[in-house]
Amino acid sequence: MGSQLGRYFRVTTFGESHGPGLGCVVENCPAGLLLCEEDIQKELDRRRPGQSRITTPRQERDRVEILSGVFEGKTLGTPIALLVRNENARAKDYEDFRHIYRPSHADYTYDMRYGHRAHLGGGRASARTTIGVVAAGAIAKKILREKFGVEICAYVAQIKDLALAKDFKLPDIRTLQQIIEQNEVRCPDNELAQAMYRLIQDTRQDGDSLGGVIEAVAENVPPGWGDPVFDRLDAMIARAILAIPATKGVEIGSGFRSTTMTGSEHNDLFYVENGKIRTRTNHSGGIQGGISNGERIFVRVAFKPTATIARMQTTVTDQKEEVVLKVKGRHDPCVLPRAVPIVEAMLALVLVDAAMGAKLARLDSW
Amino acid sequence: MGSQLGRYFRVTTFGESHGPGLGCVVENCPAGLLLCEEDIQKELDRRRPGQSRITTPRQERDRVEILSGVFEGKTLGTPIALLVRNENARAKDYEDFRHIYRPSHADYTYDMRYGHRAHLGGGRASARTTIGVVAAGAIAKKILREKFGVEICAYVAQIKDLALAKDFKLPDIRTLQQIIEQNEVRCPDNELAQAMYRLIQDTRQDGDSLGGVIEAVAENVPPGWGDPVFDRLDAMIARAILAIPATKGVEIGSGFRSTTMTGSEHNDLFYVENGKIRTRTNHSGGIQGGISNGERIFVRVAFKPTATIARMQTTVTDQKEEVVLKVKGRHDPCVLPRAVPIVEAMLALVLVDAAMGAKLARLDSW
Amino acid sequence: MGSQLGRYFRVTTFGESHGPGLGCVVENCPAGLLLCEEDIQKELDRRRPGQSRITTPRQERDRVEILSGVFEGKTLGTPIALLVRNENARAKDYEDFRHIYRPSHADYTYDMRYGHRAHLGGGRASARTTIGVVAAGAIAKKILREKFGVEICAYVAQIKDLALAKDFKLPDIRTLQQIIEQNEVRCPDNELAQAMYRLIQDTRQDGDSLGGVIEAVAENVPPGWGDPVFDRLDAMIARAILAIPATKGVEIGSGFRSTTMTGSEHNDLFYVENGKIRTRTNHSGGIQGGISNGERIFVRVAFKPTATIARMQTTVTDQKEEVVLKVKGRHDPCVLPRAVPIVEAMLALVLVDAAMGAKLARLDSW
Amino acid sequence: MGSQLGRYFRVTTFGESHGPGLGCVVENCPAGLLLCEEDIQKELDRRRPGQSRITTPRQERDRVEILSGVFEGKTLGTPIALLVRNENARAKDYEDFRHIYRPSHADYTYDMRYGHRAHLGGGRASARTTIGVVAAGAIAKKILREKFGVEICAYVAQIKDLALAKDFKLPDIRTLQQIIEQNEVRCPDNELAQAMYRLIQDTRQDGDSLGGVIEAVAENVPPGWGDPVFDRLDAMIARAILAIPATKGVEIGSGFRSTTMTGSEHNDLFYVENGKIRTRTNHSGGIQGGISNGERIFVRVAFKPTATIARMQTTVTDQKEEVVLKVKGRHDPCVLPRAVPIVEAMLALVLVDAAMGAKLARLDSW
Repeated sequence: MGSQLGRYFRVTTFGESHGPGLGCVVENCPAGLLLCEEDIQKELDRRRPGQSRITTPRQERDRVEILSGVFEGKTLGTPIALLVRNENARAKDYEDFRHIYRPSHADYTYDMRYGHRAHLGGGRASARTTIGVVAAGAIAKKILREKFGVEICAYVAQIKDLALAKDFKLPDIRTLQQIIEQNEVRCPDNELAQAMYRLIQDTRQDGDSLGGVIEAVAENVPPGWGDPVFDRLDAMIARAILAIPATKGVEIGSGFRSTTMTGSEHNDLFYVENGKIRTRTNHSGGIQGGISNGERIFVRVAFKPTATIARMQTTVTDQKEEVVLKVKGRHDPCVLPRAVPIVEAMLALVLVDAAMGAKLARLDSW
Repeated sequence: MGSQLGRYFRVTTFGESHGPGLGCVVENCPAGLLLCEEDIQKELDRRRPGQSRITTPRQERDRVEILSGVFEGKTLGTPIALLVRNENARAKDYEDFRHIYRPSHADYTYDMRYGHRAHLGGGRASARTTIGVVAAGAIAKKILREKFGVEICAYVAQIKDLALAKDFKLPDIRTLQQIIEQNEVRCPDNELAQAMYRLIQDTRQDGDSLGGVIEAVAENVPPGWGDPVFDRLDAMIARAILAIPATKGVEIGSGFRSTTMTGSEHNDLFYVENGKIRTRTNHSGGIQGGISNGERIFVRVAFKPTATIARMQTTVTDQKEEVVLKVKGRHDPCVLPRAVPIVEAMLALVLVDAAMGAKLARLDSW
Repeated sequence: MGSQLGRYFRVTTFGESHGPGLGCVVENCPAGLLLCEEDIQKELDRRRPGQSRITTPRQERDRVEILSGVFEGKTLGTPIALLVRNENARAKDYEDFRHIYRPSHADYTYDMRYGHRAHLGGGRASARTTIGVVAAGAIAKKILREKFGVEICAYVAQIKDLALAKDFKLPDIRTLQQIIEQNEVRCPDNELAQAMYRLIQDTRQDGDSLGGVIEAVAENVPPGWGDPVFDRLDAMIARAILAIPATKGVEIGSGFRSTTMTGSEHNDLFYVENGKIRTRTNHSGGIQGGISNGERIFVRVAFKPTATIARMQTTVTDQKEEVVLKVKGRHDPCVLPRAVPIVEAMLALVLVDAAMGAKLARLDSW
Repeated sequence: MGSQLGRYFRVTTFGESHGPGLGCVVENCPAGLLLCEEDIQKELDRRRPGQSRITTPRQERDRVEILSGVFEGKTLGTPIALLVRNENARAKDYEDFRHIYRPSHADYTYDMRYGHRAHLGGGRASARTTIGVVAAGAIAKKILREKFGVEICAYVAQIKDLALAKDFKLPDIRTLQQIIEQNEVRCPDNELAQAMYRLIQDTRQDGDSLGGVIEAVAENVPPGWGDPVFDRLDAMIARAILAIPATKGVEIGSGFRSTTMTGSEHNDLFYVENGKIRTRTNHSGGIQGGISNGERIFVRVAFKPTATIARMQTTVTDQKEEVVLKVKGRHDPCVLPRAVPIVEAMLALVLVDAAMGAKLARLDSW
C-alpha cells in the first residue's frame, strides 16, 4: 500500500530517485478532457531541478510521456500512464553512503521496514517521487479549471524568520499565479522575495539549510465538496499535504491561531451577498464540518529545513558503527520554491476527488 | 464514501446525533484477541457527556453492545459490530433551528451537499459520531498494547493562553496516563489544570467558548511502521486527527517550530545506545520519511473554540433570510477534555493499521 | 477484509448465525431516497426461514431496524446501518459438533484460518449472513427502479434433473416477478414447480439434499454500465454471485454453451429498432466488453446440494480423530427457493454500483 | 475505477492496444524477492502473438522493462512499474472501422460509456491489455512458488466439441506444466491436441472462429486462504477470471455438474492421511466456505468463440446506419492457447493476495 491517492480520481505513483523512471497511473479520469503532454510538462517544469540559481544545479529535463489513456488529444476514460525517465544519475555520488544512515533522512527507517534499500538519491524517499504527483495534479487542475472554474495557487509565505506581513493582502488569484512565477522564491511580496533569496544563498554558502511555510488557496470551490466523517475535505487535504517530503505540519483556515480565540471571536457569521450565502470572516478556511462552504480554501504547510546539509555530522552505519558524515552532492538548501507546485498538485488531486464524490451524494444530481 | 478509516484494520462508523443509534463495524480485526464490552466501555466512559462539571450536563450513558465478531470472549476474525443507542434526545431543543444555519457549524454545508439534513443535534456532523471511533480505538489500543507493548496517551497542553511551560517534562507514559485521569481537564500539570478549569467555568458563565491544543504521544512503536508515499505514518495520522470535529491543524514532532530552524539545528543525529540505534533529539517526532523510527511519536492538535455559544449571533436561514440566533441547549464550552480519548483512538487506529502493513512489507516476515 | 462489497455503493455486512445480531452498513447511498423499514422488510421476508413447507421449520422473524442514515423518511447520504436481531437460537443443537468438522461445510477451513470459530449454526459461514446482503439489496433495487426503471428478477430454473424446457419463454419481467411469488419453489413454470416441490419433499424424507440452478435477469439497464477491465460488469456479477454460500459456478449469457458454437453462430448482430441500436440475439447476456449494451442481462448460477444432510457420514474432529456424524437440526433440503432473493440482491448491488461509476465516466455527464 | 485488482497485492494495469505502451504497477509486493526482467519475459512470451502457427501472425516482441521497485536484483517493497511498448501497429487496418460497431465486440459499449473511443485494435478492450496481468502474474507466481511451494497450471480442456475424456487423469503438476508447453494448443492430451490443432486450422480457412474451455489447477495451497464473505477465494477467482476478455462462465470444483447430484453424493468426506486432514473426493475444488482446504484448487473457464471473424456480417455504424462488415486484419481463430498464461496469471494474483490476507487473519501469526 501507500502509493495511491484518491478514492475516485485515483493516482498510483511509482519510481525511485535513480531507477529507470518515475511516473504515475491516473485511474478514473473522465473521458472527453482535452489533454496533451505540454499540459503536464508545464507543471513539471515548475518542479524540476536546475530551474533557477537557488535550486540544485542538477540538470534534469524531466520530460513526460503519455503512455496510455489519451487518444487523438482527448482522454479515453481509461488509465492515463505518465512516465518521466531518470537522467543524469550520478550513482557514485552515493556510493559512500550505502551503509550510512544520513540524519533526518529515511535511510534508517526504510532499512528497518524493507530490509533492502535503494541508497541512491534516497530511492523512493526522494522528493523526485513527487514527479508523479505533479504530473497527475496537472490533469486535476485542468479539470477543476475547465469544469468548475476552480483556481489553485500556492506560494512561499515564510522562509526561516522572513515572513509575509500579517496585513499582507493577497491579490486576486490570477494575478497571484502570475506574480509568484516572476521571482525565483515564489513569494508574492517581491521585496521579501529578494531578502529570502539572499538568505538562501548565504545559507548555502554556510553549508546549512532552511525551512519555512507555504500557503495555498483554492478559489471558486462550490459548496458541498468533502465526505464526512473520515474523508472530510480538511482531513484529506492534510493527508495529501503531509505526504510531501519534509512537511511537519498543516493548518486549515485559522489553524493553531484559533486556539487562543473564543467562539464569539472565531465564529464565521453568515450573511447574504448578491443572493449568495457568504461568511463575514473565513476562519474556517472555506471548510465547515469537513465540507466546502464556497469561501476561499486556505491551507498552511510547515516545511522543516532540508535534511541534507554540507556540514560534518555524526551518525551511524547499518552495522551500528558511529561515523562522521559529510555529504557531497547537489542539493537544494531550501526546498520551498520547488515545493510550491507540489502543494498545488496535492490540493488539486484532493479537490477533484471531492468533486466526484459530490456528484454522487444526492439522488437528484445523478 | 467517507465513513471508513483504515486499509487493513478497517472501521466503518455510522449514526447521527439523534437517530436510533451510533456505532461502527471493525473489519479485519485478527482472530484470537480477548475482548469484552467492558474493554470498550471504559474508553467510551472517558468520552461521554456528563462525566464532570465542565462538560455538558447532558446525561448519556452510552452503553456499548457487541453485536458480532466475538465468541466466547475472543475475537473471531469476522467483523465486529458495536452499537450504542441514543437516549435522552430532546428533539424539541432543536426545532427552532430546523431552517437556521448556525455559524461555524456544518448545517449550511450539509444542506448544500445532501439537500436533506438531520437538524437535530447536528446529525452526522455531531461529535457524537466519534463514539464509533472511540469504540474501535479501544480494540486497536488493546492489540497495540498486548502484541507490541505500544502505549498511547493524549493530554490537554493548552486552553486559550494557558499552556504547559516550554520546559515541562512529561513523566513516563504509564504515569502520564494516570495523572490525566485525575483532573477534569486532562492536563498533566495539576496546577495549570486548575487554572484551565476556572477559565472554562468563567467562559461558560460568559456564554462563550474556548479552544486549545491536545498533544499525543505513542511509545514503543517499533521502527518500520508507515507506508510511503501517500500513506506515510504522519500523513495518515494527520488525516485521522483532522477528521475529529473542531480541529484546525496538526503538527508532527517539531511542527511549525521547525520552520525557523536550520538543518544543522533540526537534524536528529543518530547514535547507538544499548545496541539500539537512537536519535539524540526527536524533532522528527518519531517518524522519518513517513516511517516510524522507534522514538516517541509526538503529535499536536489545534482545536478551535466550540462553535456553539450562548450569545446572540447574526446568521441566515435556508431561505436566505438574515436572522438573529440564540442557541439554547446543553453544550461543552470547551471540548478538549472529552476530546482526549478521541485523539488517542484515532492515533491507535492509524498505528494498528500501520502495524499490519509492516507485517506484509518484507517477504521474510511473511 | 472480506465483508465489504461495492466501490461506490459500499456495503459492509456483519454478524454470525447465533450471535446477538446481523446486518450491514450501507455507505454512499445518495441522499433524498424515500426509505422505510417496510421497504427492506419485504425482501427479508422472502429470504427468511419458515416461510413455506419446504424451507426449514425454524421460525425466525428477522425484523429489521434502521439505526442510522434515514431521517424523516428520507436517506441522508450518511451510512445506513441495518440490524436484525437473532432469535430462536438453539445453541445446544450444535454442542455436539463443537469439535467435529461437518463434511463440505466451512468448519475445518474457518478453524484453519482463524484458529477460533463460532461453531453454532456455522457462525459467519452460515447463510444467515446474507441477511445483510438482502437488506442492502432492497435499497439498491429501490434506487434502480425509481431512478432508472431497472427491474430485476431471479427464479429457480432447475432442481436436480428437473429443468425448465429449453424453449420455455420467460414472460415480461413484471409478470415474472408475480408468478414466482405464487409457488413455493419460485419456479416460473407452475407445473414444473409442483414436480420440484414433490422432489424436495421426497428428498427431505430421504435425509438427503438437492442443488440446482437459479437464473436472473435485469431489464432496462442502460448501455454503458461496467468498468473495464477488472471491474467489468460480468466480473463483478460473478464475484458477488459466488459470494453466496453453496454456489459453484456462474454463467453470463450463453455461458458454457458458447464453447461449442462458432463465432459466426455466436456473434450478436447489431441492427436498429425504433431508433435504438439493438442486437438480434443476446448470447452476450446484455454485456459486451464488460459493459452493459442495453439488452437483457442474463445470469445463471449453480447451487450445489445443501451440505447438511440427515444421514450418517464419516468425518474427523479437530483432534484428527475419525468419527461418524449424524446432524440433527432444522435445515433446508434445498436452498434454492430462499436463495432467489439473495441472487437478486447481489445483482442489484452490483448494478447500482456500476450506475454510479457510469455517472463519473464522462466529463460531460458530471 | 476498474483497472485495479487485489486488496493487498494490488495491480493497476494501463494501456490501449495501439497506444504507446501497456503495462502495470504492482503495489505492495514485499521487499526481498529476487526479480529480473527475464522472470517476467518468459511469461509474456507464452502470451505473445506470433508464437506458433495457430496464433495471429502479428509479430509483437512484447519486451518488458522494469521501471521501478527493483534494485540490484531484488524487490524494494515499493511499486513495481512494468512497461511493454507497442510495436507493429498498423493503424490503417482499422481506419475502416472507425465508425462501425463490430458484432460482439466492445465498440458500441465503449462508445456508450465514454463517448470517445480508441478504435484501433479495440483500444482498452483488446486482449493486449492482459499484458499487464501476465506481467504482474509472473511476480505473483514467483512468490507463491518460492514462499509457499504453490504451483499453478492451466491447460486447454476443450475446443468446440473436442474435449478431454471424462476419465482423463492429470499427471502431477510439474509434468503437466511441461507437457502443455510441448504442443501448440496447450492441451495435456497430445493426440487430442493434434485434433484440436487441425480443427483450428480448418476453422481459420473457413473464416470462422472457435471457443472452448480452459481448466486451471493450483497445488499446495495451504488451508486458510480466502476472506469470507464477499472476498471468498472462489468469488475472487471468479471475478478475476471473468475479467479476461471472451470469458462467459466459470466453475469451481464440481461447478454446474453439482446441480444434479444429491448432498450425500456431493459431500467431500474428511479423513486423516499421514497426520493431515484430507477429503476423499474434491467436489469442493479445494475451497470450502470460501477458504482453501488444502486440496487441489480446480477452476473451469468458458471462452466464447472469438468475435473477430473473416466473414461478412451485418451491423450498424455510430450513426445508426446498417452496413455490411468484413474484417481484415490478423486475428486468432481461437484464443485459448494464448489465454492459458492469462488464466494462470489471474489465479496467481488472487492467490498471492489471499496469502497476504491469511497472514493477518490471526493475532498469533502477526
